[in-house]
Amino acid sequence: MAAACIFCKIIKGEIPSMKLFESEKVFAFLDINPLSYGHALVIPKYHGAKLHDIPDDQLTEILPVAKKIAQAVGADNYNILQNNGKIAHQVVDHVHFHMIPKPNEKEGLGISWPQQQGNQDKLKALKEEILAKM
Amino acid sequence: MAAACIFCKIIKGEIPSMKLFESEKVFAFLDINPLSYGHALVIPKYHGAKLHDIPDDQLTEILPVAKKIAQAVGADNYNILQNNGKIAHQVVDHVHFHMIPKPNEKEGLGISWPQQQGNQDKLKALKEEILAKM
Repeated sequence: MAAACIFCKIIKGEIPSMKLFESEKVFAFLDINPLSYGHALVIPKYHGAKLHDIPDDQLTEILPVAKKIAQAVGADNYNILQNNGKIAHQVVDHVHFHMIPKPNEKEGLGISWPQQQGNQDKLKALKEEILAKM
Repeated sequence: MAAACIFCKIIKGEIPSMKLFESEKVFAFLDINPLSYGHALVIPKYHGAKLHDIPDDQLTEILPVAKKIAQAVGADNYNILQNNGKIAHQVVDHVHFHMIPKPNEKEGLGISWPQQQGNQDKLKALKEEILAKM
């Protein structure tokens, strides 16, 4: 828990939320400024700013909970998004997974995809580089 | 396994890939048309088009693997994204989680955020509706 963190305060009940789910490790609530009807946040109770700050055992329940909420909302089309870093659109520095229904073109998450042409040699070199660090 | 699925073929080794990780339940490889250097995909071996088609026990290892790859790539800023449905930008109908490094404004995932002003009464009604289905 981080004293100044708004999501830690929500977990502790110091700030009210539209709570959807709570377990030992996970908390979920509706986003108060939704991109679409049913936009929810699923967060680990463990405080950490970025995904790599969260221990593995605090992450295992996140996706099953996001899935459960998507089903309860009745979303057939939706995006799961988790942003790490300001440049990557992160606003609150406590890891959070968005479950954002995509009911139509206008509402929900908008994505741009500046795809690069893959270069086999570069990819192969990158693969070896990553494997050496894993 | 679905015979016509390109990701099932990659898992089985029928189509080559830049494999980064494999376990009993999870497979990970580099995206061949990356949005940025290190763009990787983490997928459940279990075939299903959308997140809600995948059993919970096939989902628990996904985020720890995405985290492990982000760390090996050395990405400090990155997005985790999983799309469900064509309208939500899904292209391959086998659940896949993107780990997309965001090294600068130009490369990586671009996001637009058509945020709506939250209405407390509507959110409260929605919360009750969702809870009744969970």
